[in-house]
Amino acid sequence: DFENALLEIEPAFGMPKEHFERCLFGGFYIFSERMEHLVKAGNLFCEQVRTSERTNLFSVLIQGQPGTGKTALASKMAVESDFPFVRMISPEEYVGFSEASKCNAIAKVFDDAHKSPLSCIVIDNIERLIEFAPIGPRFSNTILQTLLVLIKQVPPKGRRLLILATCSMPEIMESLDVRSAFHSVLSTSYLQHEEIVQLLKGHIEDATPAKLYASEQQRQSNRQRRRLFLQ
Amino acid sequence: DFENALLEIEPAFGMPKEHFERCLFGGFYIFSERMEHLVKAGNLFCEQVRTSERTNLFSVLIQGQPGTGKTALASKMAVESDFPFVRMISPEEYVGFSEASKCNAIAKVFDDAHKSPLSCIVIDNIERLIEFAPIGPRFSNTILQTLLVLIKQVPPKGRRLLILATCSMPEIMESLDVRSAFHSVLSTSYLQHEEIVQLLKGHIEDATPAKLYASEQQRQSNRQRRRLFLQ
Amino acid sequence: DFENALLEIEPAFGMPKEHFERCLFGGFYIFSERMEHLVKAGNLFCEQVRTSERTNLFSVLIQGQPGTGKTALASKMAVESDFPFVRMISPEEYVGFSEASKCNAIAKVFDDAHKSPLSCIVIDNIERLIEFAPIGPRFSNTILQTLLVLIKQVPPKGRRLLILATCSMPEIMESLDVRSAFHSVLSTSYLQHEEIVQLLKGHIEDATPAKLYASEQQRQSNRQRRRLFLQ
Amino acid sequence: DFENALLEIEPAFGMPKEHFERCLFGGFYIFSERMEHLVKAGNLFCEQVRTSERTNLFSVLIQGQPGTGKTALASKMAVESDFPFVRMISPEEYVGFSEASKCNAIAKVFDDAHKSPLSCIVIDNIERLIEFAPIGPRFSNTILQTLLVLIKQVPPKGRRLLILATCSMPEIMESLDVRSAFHSVLSTSYLQHEEIVQLLKGHIEDATPAKLYASEQQRQSNRQRRRLFLQ
Amino acid sequence: DFENALLEIEPAFGMPKEHFERCLFGGFYIFSERMEHLVKAGNLFCEQVRTSERTNLFSVLIQGQPGTGKTALASKMAVESDFPFVRMISPEEYVGFSEASKCNAIAKVFDDAHKSPLSCIVIDNIERLIEFAPIGPRFSNTILQTLLVLIKQVPPKGRRLLILATCSMPEIMESLDVRSAFHSVLSTSYLQHEEIVQLLKGHIEDATPAKLYASEQQRQSNRQRRRLFLQ
Amino acid sequence: DFENALLEIEPAFGMPKEHFERCLFGGFYIFSERMEHLVKAGNLFCEQVRTSERTNLFSVLIQGQPGTGKTALASKMAVESDFPFVRMISPEEYVGFSEASKCNAIAKVFDDAHKSPLSCIVIDNIERLIEFAPIGPRFSNTILQTLLVLIKQVPPKGRRLLILATCSMPEIMESLDVRSAFHSVLSTSYLQHEEIVQLLKGHIEDATPAKLYASEQQRQSNRQRRRLFLQ
Ligand SMILES: Nc1ncnc2c1ncn2[C@@H]1O[C@H](COP(=O)(O)OP(=O)(O)OP(=O)(O)O)[C@@H](O)[C@H]1O
Ligand SMILES: Nc1ncnc2c1ncn2[C@@H]1O[C@H](COP(=O)(O)OP(=O)(O)OP(=O)(O)O)[C@@H](O)[C@H]1O
Ligand SMILES: Nc1ncnc2c1ncn2[C@@H]1O[C@H](COP(=O)(O)OP(=O)(O)OP(=O)(O)O)[C@@H](O)[C@H]1O
Ligand SMILES: Nc1ncnc2c1ncn2[C@@H]1O[C@H](COP(=O)(O)OP(=O)(O)OP(=O)(O)O)[C@@H](O)[C@H]1O
Ligand SMILES: Nc1ncnc2c1ncn2[C@@H]1O[C@H](COP(=O)(O)OP(=O)(O)OP(=O)(O)O)[C@@H](O)[C@H]1O
Ligand SMILES: Nc1ncnc2c1ncn2[C@@H]1O[C@H](COP(=O)(O)OP(=O)(O)OP(=O)(O)O)[C@@H](O)[C@H]1O
Ligand SMILES: [Mg+2]
Ligand SMILES: [Mg+2]
Ligand SMILES: [Mg+2]
Ligand SMILES: [Mg+2]
Ligand SMILES: [Mg+2]
Ligand SMILES: [Mg+2]
Repeated sequence: DFENALLEIEPAFGMPKEHFERCLFGGFYIFSERMEHLVKAGNLFCEQVRTSERTNLFSVLIQGQPGTGKTALASKMAVESDFPFVRMISPEEYVGFSEASKCNAIAKVFDDAHKSPLSCIVIDNIERLIEFAPIGPRFSNTILQTLLVLIKQVPPKGRRLLILATCSMPEIMESLDVRSAFHSVLSTSYLQHEEIVQLLKGHIEDATPAKLYASEQQRQSNRQRRRLFLQ
Repeated sequence: DFENALLEIEPAFGMPKEHFERCLFGGFYIFSERMEHLVKAGNLFCEQVRTSERTNLFSVLIQGQPGTGKTALASKMAVESDFPFVRMISPEEYVGFSEASKCNAIAKVFDDAHKSPLSCIVIDNIERLIEFAPIGPRFSNTILQTLLVLIKQVPPKGRRLLILATCSMPEIMESLDVRSAFHSVLSTSYLQHEEIVQLLKGHIEDATPAKLYASEQQRQSNRQRRRLFLQ
Repeated sequence: DFENALLEIEPAFGMPKEHFERCLFGGFYIFSERMEHLVKAGNLFCEQVRTSERTNLFSVLIQGQPGTGKTALASKMAVESDFPFVRMISPEEYVGFSEASKCNAIAKVFDDAHKSPLSCIVIDNIERLIEFAPIGPRFSNTILQTLLVLIKQVPPKGRRLLILATCSMPEIMESLDVRSAFHSVLSTSYLQHEEIVQLLKGHIEDATPAKLYASEQQRQSNRQRRRLFLQ
Repeated sequence: DFENALLEIEPAFGMPKEHFERCLFGGFYIFSERMEHLVKAGNLFCEQVRTSERTNLFSVLIQGQPGTGKTALASKMAVESDFPFVRMISPEEYVGFSEASKCNAIAKVFDDAHKSPLSCIVIDNIERLIEFAPIGPRFSNTILQTLLVLIKQVPPKGRRLLILATCSMPEIMESLDVRSAFHSVLSTSYLQHEEIVQLLKGHIEDATPAKLYASEQQRQSNRQRRRLFLQ
Repeated sequence: DFENALLEIEPAFGMPKEHFERCLFGGFYIFSERMEHLVKAGNLFCEQVRTSERTNLFSVLIQGQPGTGKTALASKMAVESDFPFVRMISPEEYVGFSEASKCNAIAKVFDDAHKSPLSCIVIDNIERLIEFAPIGPRFSNTILQTLLVLIKQVPPKGRRLLILATCSMPEIMESLDVRSAFHSVLSTSYLQHEEIVQLLKGHIEDATPAKLYASEQQRQSNRQRRRLFLQ
Repeated sequence: DFENALLEIEPAFGMPKEHFERCLFGGFYIFSERMEHLVKAGNLFCEQVRTSERTNLFSVLIQGQPGTGKTALASKMAVESDFPFVRMISPEEYVGFSEASKCNAIAKVFDDAHKSPLSCIVIDNIERLIEFAPIGPRFSNTILQTLLVLIKQVPPKGRRLLILATCSMPEIMESLDVRSAFHSVLSTSYLQHEEIVQLLKGHIEDATPAKLYASEQQRQSNRQRRRLFLQ
């Protein structure tokens, strides 16, 4: 029956680490100084979760317009964290789920994370997860509330958790008071023409050399590619 | 069946005292005169519940922006009350619950409290418990009504109850007439720049020495910390 | 089954007389001339129900801001009426009830009252009973309609009923046309500064001595209190 | 012409110190511990403005229900500050003024204050000054903006300013974002029944003796009053 | 020109004492116990204004359905106060006035009152004065604000003022926060059938004899009329 | 006439450099790593305007909650830019102005800036400049449109302009599409408890020494302060 079926699929919830590679398929380039800052901030956050004496939870909202690399950035941070438990909560997994099943599935990912000493959860595309439609506006309040609670839930003693969430509607996140649930916010954006010119002229390379952050297992093979390497 | 299952888990509702320690994980510091006043007010309220001849119920709303230490302050007050029955009603416990089950679980905590001579209930994050979303706005009226009734319910003779509730949306609490259900309101806030400078210059230390309230298990190791004294 | 179970617990609905004592726990003082008038009006209403040749129903709405003593006043009136059947309909009894069960439980209290020659029903906190929330606004229309009908229902011949209802949102009662369902309205209010000064100066004591109405079990011990006299 | 006429009456804007005495006509009593705390906080703020090395501006919002003594408290603080420049901006001065004239008159009071080394401005009844009506709601945005700007305007070097504002609609102040313009908020409230009983029993007198702050001209004759002491 | 014209008619604003007689044309009867209480309360308020040591202002809102005698009651109170300055602010005076002229005219009445040691102002029919229309709803906010300010304005030292206002839309007064501007509220209502029967049976006469309050100059001639006398 | 009068006072619009010192009255401290990043970003932007070959305009929106140091940061950036033309457009200058005069005055500052080779304009408190009130919401669209146009207006050849704007309502800026008018966004925020603990423990001092940026006239006297170093 349904109850049993649910129990069986539950362990599968949350996209595993392999999924992240797919989001980084084309490699991850550092096109601008701003992006370099984002990557550095990401590393800092991982470090903070790993070592802080005072808190075992850190949550980051990555916001920016569609296609500006939010999912890529989150994936990169998750992969490079090298945390033993890494999962992505992605709307594509929950197509056709009822509100209640979605909430249970999402909560399951957090429960699993709380069993690992060091975990990283990526919540991709919050506005899709809460089924937001601008006309109305409409959204699933049940899922929203579940997310807000889980994001703030402190892991049990000895467990540490980094939460990375992406969204492309910052003003909706403000209005729904989602933003204030996060410890930090990173903003991605399109390259300005000036930055592209800098990039083309090689200025970026000189000033702050464009670097490649490959996930660990691919790093060696990528060494020879010129200036911008594929993952 | 469901009814039986529910009965069995009910006794587990309400985070027990150990949970509070988690909310005080990093210790509790007194950074400013205002915070010292809050702590003193808290002690006063505990005393009032313990000794008042005329009332056996006292309820306090702790409000302030996210991260200003509302849960920490409530936890500290609850732990230091040394009341035999101390429970936290926290939204994270009720993820995936129906409205009715949530209400029952919350009422159960109050029922249990009414069986102890001296009890303290922390209702953490009211706006999450009532599933408030600013767009609409939407919220669970059933849970709101349940809370409003329980907060005002006078304990039976010989029982005394202190209620501490936290929320970060004061204007919503006003609009929903939640605020007037409480006997007193405490407001937490961020440190102003002036206060930080005072703190750095050691002025706070002179006037009212910055004190450290560590949770029980950390108290010993904290003894040596510079400029921060054990309570 | 559920229906039977419900029938069995029904006789328990409505807080019995002992409950009123709890609402008068700290004694009942007369702080001002206005409060003395309220108490006198209350006595008058009791008398009217007991003796009127023309009507066997009288209903009073007691309104005032939170904590101004509405429940205390209603309890005092009910206790001092000395009517054989005295019940309080209080929202705390119905936590977790469905709308329909609440309506049934409330109607049961009236049915019971109609079996006694002289009854007094206190309907405490109408806005909580109808689950009113100012945002929306939302409320249970089913419960509202039930109350409006019951309040106006004339008891069978030979039965007499006094209804005392309390509410703290007069403008809502107006808007919902609840107010016009009552024969009379009493308004409680906070003491004005001028009245407190009068009280302190002993002027109230001279003009109309401040009296103390203690609940039965406390009456003896209160005899010696200074400047506050037993009724 | 109008311009000239305006210039001539401008110096008269802002109720002078004598006006405050009228608001303290009946003397100022300390009825409860909470009120004593308010008065102490007031003294602290005065001291802070007088001596702070880092800021020459401090603004306090005094909120509470009608008749809870907001104007009295602000007047007392202003009078006891002993600052050379003390003015009240009160809606009754501006009856029949156009929006623009009102703004000019209010700005004039601040300009004058900026010419004195130590000033205190009381802005009485913000919701009346901005002509707020709950239905609509309606208000003068021009006057609101003017107030918000003036309240935050830092006085010139060597000038120090304490701003005390009163309002009785806290939820409106939140909604209009007025509250966040102030450095601190004080809340007045009605006495609870418990406090009145304490007062009558003389408990307040023992713990913190009920004091009387009479306005200057009444001080002598008040000396003999029972249980109420001159400050 | 307009300015001069205005100055000339200003002294005429406010219906003088003679006008009140018109509102009492048919005499003033006491039909019920409740009305007797209203009249007694009225006398008490007059006495309070005349003699209070602590306040020189008292304001009463008389509310009730159309035709329940609000204007009659206010007129009676005003006439029997025997205060040297008695004026009625009545909407019929201001037909065709602009908002600004209306405000000026109303303020003029208060200014004049402040020049007499003992004054009584009747503000008749507030909802008409503020030009309230339920659809919209619409009303003159300028006039509303002016009234709210004037009603709360404390008279200068040595001057005493009683304000009596009538309105027949209590819920609007609540919504516009007009009610809280008054110190006290009196409610008039239609006679219930029971009261009429009591009256006819002469019960009222026995219990509390129906009294006649004639205006001073008519008192003598009215002496002989039986039980209910014409004015 | 009016036009001429306006021209004559116009040269005074825009607070001159001295005004910035007032906003830095108490010195400028670096309390956290995040603040250090903000200051570095600021320096970078100044450098970019001074040297960019491709653009002579750069605009930065500094957003954050009230009192988080937006004006202080902008002032510091402006003062340290050492640009020959530095002006602040501040709402306090325009109290009592009509919409049109305000727009003219603001445009004048930009016109003046366009005459200097290197200019920096601080637009302080955008929501106040556009007279934003959350209820309605209301704002001056005329001023908003003026600002949006001026912010994007490219200076004439050979002129370079840095625009720094502050606001404390990011979601409003989003909704009004103001944010997208800027090249970059900096966010200030309150210190988190963790950061304060780091600061107290001296961790910040070790990692990135807490520095003090005093305004010119205070620099000397500040040399000796403990643990806070001059820039
Ligand atoms: N730094 C980068 N280097 C190389 N490719 C990138 C980088 N960032 C993003 N991309 C590519 O750009 C595309 C869009 O990126 P991504 O899906 O991460 O954006 P997004 O902000 O998550 O978009 P959406 O809002 O649609 O989810 C992807 O193909 C991704 O691989
Ligand atoms: N006085 C304090 N001393 C030391 N750390 C504190 C203090 N107050 C709060 N903290 C820490 O700051 C962080 C935020 O505090 P807390 O969770 O209590 O805030 P909150 O107001 O409840 O926030 P939210 O609105 O998100 O629930 C926690 O890590 C907590 O341990
Ligand atoms: N006349 C009185 N003398 C002494 N104590 C009183 C009196 N009236 C009320 N109290 C006490 O004040 C407190 C509040 O009174 P009560 O609960 O009756 O107010 P309420 O108006 O019903 O409030 P709510 O709106 O919260 O229901 C109670 O502790 C009550 O015992
Ligand atoms: N502490 C006090 N001691 C004595 N009398 C007081 C005290 N506080 C207020 N009063 C008196 O109570 C009355 C109401 O006070 P006040 O006008 O200050 O209240 P308020 O909160 O400003 O009211 P409003 O909202 O109507 O402006 C006044 O007559 C005032 O003199
Ligand atoms: N106590 C009374 N004795 C005799 N006549 C009365 C009494 N009260 C009112 N009336 C008469 O009843 C009529 C209506 O009274 P009045 O105009 O005072 O009512 P109102 O409440 O002011 O009505 P409205 O809302 O229309 O202004 C008048 O003719 C008045 O003289
Ligand atoms: N880095 C800092 N070091 C020392 N003092 C600071 C610092 N930043 C701000 N301050 C001080 O804190 C107070 C508030 O700062 P500021 O006015 O710049 O904040 P703001 O964000 O502009 O506030 P608002 O939203 O009210 O305009 C000021 O007194 C300012 O001098
Ligand atoms: Mg994506
Ligand atoms: Mg919390
Ligand atoms: Mg009650
Ligand atoms: Mg006032
Ligand atoms: Mg009338
Ligand atoms: Mg600022």
